[in-house]
Amino acid sequence: MRPGTTHPSRPMHRAVRASAAVALLALGVATAQAQTAIPALKAVALDQQALTAPLTIAKQGSFFVGGRDLQSDTLSTLPAYAKTGTITVDQMYTRYQIPASAKDVSLVLIHGCCLTGKTWESTPDGRMGWDEYFVRRGYPTYVIDQSGRGRSAVNATAMNATKLGQATAEQLPVVFAASHESAWVIFRFGPQYPKLFEGQQFPVASQKALWQQMVPDWLNAMPTPNPTVPALSQLSKQLKKTVLMSHSQSGIYPFQTASLDTTGIAGIVSIEPGACPAATGNLTPYTKMPVMVLFGDYVELAPRWAPRLVACREFVKKVNEAGGRAELLVLPEIGIRGNTHMLMQDLNSIQIADLLGSWIEQRVLTAK
Amino acid sequence: MRPGTTHPSRPMHRAVRASAAVALLALGVATAQAQTAIPALKAVALDQQALTAPLTIAKQGSFFVGGRDLQSDTLSTLPAYAKTGTITVDQMYTRYQIPASAKDVSLVLIHGCCLTGKTWESTPDGRMGWDEYFVRRGYPTYVIDQSGRGRSAVNATAMNATKLGQATAEQLPVVFAASHESAWVIFRFGPQYPKLFEGQQFPVASQKALWQQMVPDWLNAMPTPNPTVPALSQLSKQLKKTVLMSHSQSGIYPFQTASLDTTGIAGIVSIEPGACPAATGNLTPYTKMPVMVLFGDYVELAPRWAPRLVACREFVKKVNEAGGRAELLVLPEIGIRGNTHMLMQDLNSIQIADLLGSWIEQRVLTAK
Repeated sequence: MRPGTTHPSRPMHRAVRASAAVALLALGVATAQAQTAIPALKAVALDQQALTAPLTIAKQGSFFVGGRDLQSDTLSTLPAYAKTGTITVDQMYTRYQIPASAKDVSLVLIHGCCLTGKTWESTPDGRMGWDEYFVRRGYPTYVIDQSGRGRSAVNATAMNATKLGQATAEQLPVVFAASHESAWVIFRFGPQYPKLFEGQQFPVASQKALWQQMVPDWLNAMPTPNPTVPALSQLSKQLKKTVLMSHSQSGIYPFQTASLDTTGIAGIVSIEPGACPAATGNLTPYTKMPVMVLFGDYVELAPRWAPRLVACREFVKKVNEAGGRAELLVLPEIGIRGNTHMLMQDLNSIQIADLLGSWIEQRVLTAK
Repeated sequence: MRPGTTHPSRPMHRAVRASAAVALLALGVATAQAQTAIPALKAVALDQQALTAPLTIAKQGSFFVGGRDLQSDTLSTLPAYAKTGTITVDQMYTRYQIPASAKDVSLVLIHGCCLTGKTWESTPDGRMGWDEYFVRRGYPTYVIDQSGRGRSAVNATAMNATKLGQATAEQLPVVFAASHESAWVIFRFGPQYPKLFEGQQFPVASQKALWQQMVPDWLNAMPTPNPTVPALSQLSKQLKKTVLMSHSQSGIYPFQTASLDTTGIAGIVSIEPGACPAATGNLTPYTKMPVMVLFGDYVELAPRWAPRLVACREFVKKVNEAGGRAELLVLPEIGIRGNTHMLMQDLNSIQIADLLGSWIEQRVLTAK
């Protein structure tokens, strides 16, 4: 049996958004605040007009960052296509929209495991994605497909090497597909498929449109460091002042990018990172820009996520002790309940976007 | 040695565009015209203001069409992800933009072999792609990634079956990557890599940005018929009146879609199709809407393409004999020279888009 129709609606949150454009929120960063005296965040919502009026785009387009040329003798097993030749791999697809009257800080949206840049586009139930929301809020917004995912080519030559008898089956690339059942738990829709956490906010009636988004993940077949990280570094330099916003498996990428070079990185938002950097490592790069680590609800009920939150809390504390401006926000601690791991697609996704847009405005735009 | 700087610029074409908004063109469809009295096409160019003003979008977003759930025991070879479970495969990613003051006929852009929907976005040298051009011309424009390409997931379970010892190496999916060298010839930049045809219009100085677009092609590992075709049929019904514009390997897909069901298909534009339907087959579905088959330059110099043009000419002739309104246009026959197979990215790409936009307006919009 599929769940789907049992989800309780949450009109209260919507009403709050509609009536109160500005709300004071007590952030769950008491320790951090004690260290660095970060002022309270005011959540400023986009009004209905800004959310629904026709959208004026000054410029849009797409391009690739990075990539390397590779010679191979196992490009094809078909007579119509040559076995031998040059291909380009490891590049990172990037699509962008720049609104009229743009702010001078841009935003890069970086999806997580088993997904593509589609993560940030229209939600499964057809509401506006964050790719458009942040354009409406004034940010030039860049959505990437990680190297080896979506429109960023995988390197399939190792598979053909096995098919052509030049490598063993064991040498095939490590590629996995997350099942609906395992994603259900990892994304914290409920404790196990198909049970739901009470009050959870993912639009489960439209779950099919999430499953359609999922792609096999070649992450473990990629070079180290993942080429997405140097590509993000190159993109940050090109954009000059940008906020890197990551999710889940890519949660650590903005930090790894900052470790390479902080140039161009105006801020980091890491949403439910699979890992924060080690609190015992060199934290200096992360003291150079405002940092927000954000978690949703039910974390303590999820064995996969609970220890990650603990480790991220320690990381944020140590960054602030080292002179940084890092914050960690757990949504239920400020009264926002029911958010799953896929909070950019949850029913209150615009409320969360309002919060993060406000964070950028109050931490990054004012930091110049 | 890489070519790249030897390309002659073509200021003449640009000047023609800027000065003459309307030009009468004698179409290379004398036979077809004799059959069906199709009037001459007037190429109406978008003016500079329409091409460069800020773009007002009434609505945009993305969604998937189609797909099926699949149970598998070879989803993963990693302990962190379950081997067994359900995934969704064969769905088709679709991104759209609807302009303010939209026409009531939409356009679906369908890429070809070894590529994704990126084909239609910003050109390798950074000029506007047709995805935006047609929005500026007033068309709700839908860009797809074929099933099993780009953001439309491949089914990787067969690869893991081999890695897990449950299938042989020979049973691995047929997947190929087109090399730069072979794509150079297939795309008719020149007779062989790295030679150029004289006067060719692809921006070869930016060729790296084309190689970055290319992805391994799982086409031959897909079910038959390719799931993209029923997905296009479903999308056409949803859009009600749409022009299916295909390229190369997907050239035949709009025809296959019309064979399934003509509902929703207001017209077909097939750009350099890998194949036209057999002229000896049932042509009735293709008599139900205006059809344009378009070829660029150098076709007679390309052993891969010359016979396809011959076969498409015969197909168009027979469709018209059966009462259809089909046209075949070879660009040099109307004085537009130098176009490669990647004509939506060529230096005169806007000139070609002007021509196709005019064709839709004069054949499809007036046919209601």
